[in-house]
Amino acid sequence: MDIGIIGGSGYTGGELLRLLAQHPEATVRAVTSRSRKGHKVSDTHTHLRKIYDLNFEDLAPEEVASRCDIVFTAVPHGTAMQVVPALLDNGVKVIDLSADYRLRTDVFEKTYKMKHTDPRDAVYGIPELHPEVAEQKFIANPGCYPTGASLSAAPLADADLIERVVFDSKSGISGAGAEPTEVSHYPNMAENIQAYKLTSHRHRAEIVQELTRLDSSLKSISFTPHVIPSVRGILTTAHIFVRKELSEEDVSEIYRDFYQDKPFIRLIKGIPMLGSVRGSNFCDIGFEIDKNSDRIVVISAIDNLVKGASGQAIQNMNLMFGLPETTGLWTPALAP
Amino acid sequence: MDIGIIGGSGYTGGELLRLLAQHPEATVRAVTSRSRKGHKVSDTHTHLRKIYDLNFEDLAPEEVASRCDIVFTAVPHGTAMQVVPALLDNGVKVIDLSADYRLRTDVFEKTYKMKHTDPRDAVYGIPELHPEVAEQKFIANPGCYPTGASLSAAPLADADLIERVVFDSKSGISGAGAEPTEVSHYPNMAENIQAYKLTSHRHRAEIVQELTRLDSSLKSISFTPHVIPSVRGILTTAHIFVRKELSEEDVSEIYRDFYQDKPFIRLIKGIPMLGSVRGSNFCDIGFEIDKNSDRIVVISAIDNLVKGASGQAIQNMNLMFGLPETTGLWTPALAP
Amino acid sequence: MDIGIIGGSGYTGGELLRLLAQHPEATVRAVTSRSRKGHKVSDTHTHLRKIYDLNFEDLAPEEVASRCDIVFTAVPHGTAMQVVPALLDNGVKVIDLSADYRLRTDVFEKTYKMKHTDPRDAVYGIPELHPEVAEQKFIANPGCYPTGASLSAAPLADADLIERVVFDSKSGISGAGAEPTEVSHYPNMAENIQAYKLTSHRHRAEIVQELTRLDSSLKSISFTPHVIPSVRGILTTAHIFVRKELSEEDVSEIYRDFYQDKPFIRLIKGIPMLGSVRGSNFCDIGFEIDKNSDRIVVISAIDNLVKGASGQAIQNMNLMFGLPETTGLWTPALAP
Amino acid sequence: MDIGIIGGSGYTGGELLRLLAQHPEATVRAVTSRSRKGHKVSDTHTHLRKIYDLNFEDLAPEEVASRCDIVFTAVPHGTAMQVVPALLDNGVKVIDLSADYRLRTDVFEKTYKMKHTDPRDAVYGIPELHPEVAEQKFIANPGCYPTGASLSAAPLADADLIERVVFDSKSGISGAGAEPTEVSHYPNMAENIQAYKLTSHRHRAEIVQELTRLDSSLKSISFTPHVIPSVRGILTTAHIFVRKELSEEDVSEIYRDFYQDKPFIRLIKGIPMLGSVRGSNFCDIGFEIDKNSDRIVVISAIDNLVKGASGQAIQNMNLMFGLPETTGLWTPALAP
Repeated sequence: MDIGIIGGSGYTGGELLRLLAQHPEATVRAVTSRSRKGHKVSDTHTHLRKIYDLNFEDLAPEEVASRCDIVFTAVPHGTAMQVVPALLDNGVKVIDLSADYRLRTDVFEKTYKMKHTDPRDAVYGIPELHPEVAEQKFIANPGCYPTGASLSAAPLADADLIERVVFDSKSGISGAGAEPTEVSHYPNMAENIQAYKLTSHRHRAEIVQELTRLDSSLKSISFTPHVIPSVRGILTTAHIFVRKELSEEDVSEIYRDFYQDKPFIRLIKGIPMLGSVRGSNFCDIGFEIDKNSDRIVVISAIDNLVKGASGQAIQNMNLMFGLPETTGLWTPALAP
Repeated sequence: MDIGIIGGSGYTGGELLRLLAQHPEATVRAVTSRSRKGHKVSDTHTHLRKIYDLNFEDLAPEEVASRCDIVFTAVPHGTAMQVVPALLDNGVKVIDLSADYRLRTDVFEKTYKMKHTDPRDAVYGIPELHPEVAEQKFIANPGCYPTGASLSAAPLADADLIERVVFDSKSGISGAGAEPTEVSHYPNMAENIQAYKLTSHRHRAEIVQELTRLDSSLKSISFTPHVIPSVRGILTTAHIFVRKELSEEDVSEIYRDFYQDKPFIRLIKGIPMLGSVRGSNFCDIGFEIDKNSDRIVVISAIDNLVKGASGQAIQNMNLMFGLPETTGLWTPALAP
Repeated sequence: MDIGIIGGSGYTGGELLRLLAQHPEATVRAVTSRSRKGHKVSDTHTHLRKIYDLNFEDLAPEEVASRCDIVFTAVPHGTAMQVVPALLDNGVKVIDLSADYRLRTDVFEKTYKMKHTDPRDAVYGIPELHPEVAEQKFIANPGCYPTGASLSAAPLADADLIERVVFDSKSGISGAGAEPTEVSHYPNMAENIQAYKLTSHRHRAEIVQELTRLDSSLKSISFTPHVIPSVRGILTTAHIFVRKELSEEDVSEIYRDFYQDKPFIRLIKGIPMLGSVRGSNFCDIGFEIDKNSDRIVVISAIDNLVKGASGQAIQNMNLMFGLPETTGLWTPALAP
Repeated sequence: MDIGIIGGSGYTGGELLRLLAQHPEATVRAVTSRSRKGHKVSDTHTHLRKIYDLNFEDLAPEEVASRCDIVFTAVPHGTAMQVVPALLDNGVKVIDLSADYRLRTDVFEKTYKMKHTDPRDAVYGIPELHPEVAEQKFIANPGCYPTGASLSAAPLADADLIERVVFDSKSGISGAGAEPTEVSHYPNMAENIQAYKLTSHRHRAEIVQELTRLDSSLKSISFTPHVIPSVRGILTTAHIFVRKELSEEDVSEIYRDFYQDKPFIRLIKGIPMLGSVRGSNFCDIGFEIDKNSDRIVVISAIDNLVKGASGQAIQNMNLMFGLPETTGLWTPALAP
């Protein structure tokens, strides 16, 4: 497969390159970046020295399409909608890592407070929840928080068991991107934890869309994100208040049935942690039933840049090309 | 005031020494440690070199009492109940930093799964919630999580406004003590976050005791702790579901009224963070109202070793001796 | 004493405020910042909430001088020389925390590649090496690296024993300031260590000046700095090649004699570390003699923002006003 | 190739497993651990869940040999010499990751203060310095510090240009192993840096052996290690004092010639850092010439668990079996 990456200078672009270097069927043919045009890709992504001998280019979407079988758009929201139409019109498959096509158009416009210039249906690319990914030419790759949150609660939502859910999520700071900011300034982040957008993070809309698709009666979905002094990973603590009493075996069975044959989901006895998934496409899930109340605490752990972004995008690509979804992705996490 | 510390080799003991070194009315007369008897205090607490010229001693409670006006017991639960009676019988004031006297005896025995050998009433030493501290000879100093959690929710509980509350707490690893463990092993903790005792942490009993004291009708109190890669601090994210709609001004007023004249409570507009309280006795509190639901998110930030332990103990001591509660504690946090 | 701070929005300004809050004789009368004029000091330095009720002002030096007994200039190099003359002309004492007056004018101009507009002698304010601080009206406060390096080697230099010295220094990232940069971006700094300016850091000139003052025959002085994933602190590993064989007792005696009655120097048996000095004005020094060669390894540990900047400035202030040098500074480090 | 790992529960064992999972020609047939016998490998190495379905076994060396073509011994020094003879006698190839066979027997006994029970010659497995690895049945895999140090200085040693060299090394804490200790306790390591064994680290003997092999006249080799708050990586700052003046081009050419066709050596213009090699088998090398003296500063960066241990072991294995040395190892570092 010949691959193009539009917007290759950020973390998701770098992560696509890192993962594709290990993919047996993929060859990267174009990596674009307006600001770094002409510079070596490995001057920006120094961990890719000797692995890639490519320069960033500043190319029109049509030019990228002409070289490739599939193009990943790793650009900010609002920008993706300006290049996706030309790519699709030129017959290339597209996986968009931005937020532009994840939500129903009206919800997108309300959430992102901007007009959508290319209203278009796209399958929401969590393959474990959307087997129809395999037949698509165009995928909207999910947000990192919604991936961790949706996977943690989907089995119980699908069983119509959730009365109320609070997602309290903790993310590594790489989710905020490669540009230095006040929050990512080492002295501000180290030895700290920063809650933000306590009630209004835009990723909530994706979580609501996915869970209400499984259970339209589910009304109370809360989401509060935090950044922690870690580079990678999202740990989601899902406080799920259920509609009827469930035993540990009940819950285990619901999750096992729902995720059977899903290679990247690991249901574990203990408590998931970032250290077991770093750099990998796995999503670890564990839970405990609260004997004090009607609460079940489900914990999921993913790498925000892999299962939460570029790894999941490659998983989608594999499915779109009829490959096993694990191709090039069956690599262990880096630990310790 | 002449001060004794029973169990001075751990983090709360070290922190008492650090803070007392800046207290204008306090002189430390005895620091006990069985295992380090005869060794310099500053060989264990190397940051106290030149500040203290004291040796650890292995002393009977009576001997400590004879030298002191007040004794802090910084020993494990189960051990405190073995020394507190002798201290009190010898006429010295006592602040116990263990869990032994924080709970009603029956709740203690159930929670800690051990017989209490010294059932005795003690005031629970969060001075902002217990003005009666000032008249006591004996104080049960609160746990770190309960301090952060109770202070975040007390005003709304006191107003009978809470229907359901989920405390999702994130603690620095110093809360687990000075002894190396699997969890505190740097390669396990760095770049990670570890949820634990998802539904069964013993500190929950203290939180329930404090909040139901304010509102006996409050039934649904959930608590899940995490350790994060930070040494100090507890950030508590309190997801509070309220009984009636409240405006931002309503909530602000409730907190302002409840905490007026409480010097260590800082109500802030933004979102509290550990970086603003590290090393200090302050508790920063902020909140946001969720427009999507009946939820208010309240965040509190404390230093677990100061306001969550040794600082609060000294605040209690000040009140017990008729001093301004800020004496020796009115020091800014260390930032960055 | 009435105190002014010119340039109060950065880390050294914030640290002056933190330390002065604990100083019994000091009252801060003015804190300037052009960019934050009119805003609360504690909006920038959130750890100082409730401690200071001051606003940043944009004041002429003359105005600051009129309110104060002493002014700290905590501005970038090149800027200090524009305000110091007016301050001194108005009869106020001045401690300059910039590099402007630390070096002989010709060395300054060569090192900083700029013209000096106010050539003027100043005492270099490491009080342990410059007892004449006490008689000054104007002090050039030293750089952070030179403080740690000079203190580690001064006794051996003073004894004319050094043939060659390599300072390999490791600094916390706060030394790079409060502005976010590529290097200080959390994902770039965490789990990393970054050597920089391997042979050309400007602080080398200060080290050379101080050590050759003690031993004019000392020729080979090398310095290479690194930033480590810590916020505060400088650990200096001084690889000192000596002119004659020395026993452990010889070296101990040289250091003890040189630093007797210096309260902030702690000569220790073991190996100094940042954790023992964080937030304090102490400089811990230890050493080991290399049996394989003519090398002695001396390690010093300081807090770069305290002994390496604002704490040392206050120590200088104390001496200039006839106070004990420890006034307001005799506080233990924060550990753990 | 059928692979055995003796001592699979530690970090080097886990890292062998992680890397071998990506090796196209390798199948792990046995992993031993006395203490974890019968337990799943992925209960200890939780990042390997679903990747390996193996249990730890407690096997005699002969039994391991009977199943395998090659065996890695990842046991403490002193233990390896008890199992290596039986392995070799049973005709299997062996790579020993302990220190037992790295040094000449007399040097080993002096350095490790123990009798060697199996004196035997072994090739020291830095393949870039020892092309004869390819013909061996038995390799002594080098220490982590000596790998980084030797690679940084070998070209200049080989050219007989070094007068004196000081290696100031900074290691991630994973080098100290998987067992919790005082030093690895998170509150002790975070925000700190710890120099240790300032003049007497045992790895110095390996560095001396390698460099004097290249230049027998080289006398002054100093080594001081530090641990930094990072999990992985060794940054070596080599302060090299040279025998004659060299231009930047001279040095570049010496390194380019020496390391031509060595795939894992990356000579770079800038300054190497851990972030570019984490999880990979690369060794990045850069340098700067000190205009103030006869010093050249060479910096090398490796991952201590990969190029410094298990990755280099697999590189050796590849060569011993006639495979390209990059087989299964040509994976990019994990960044950010």
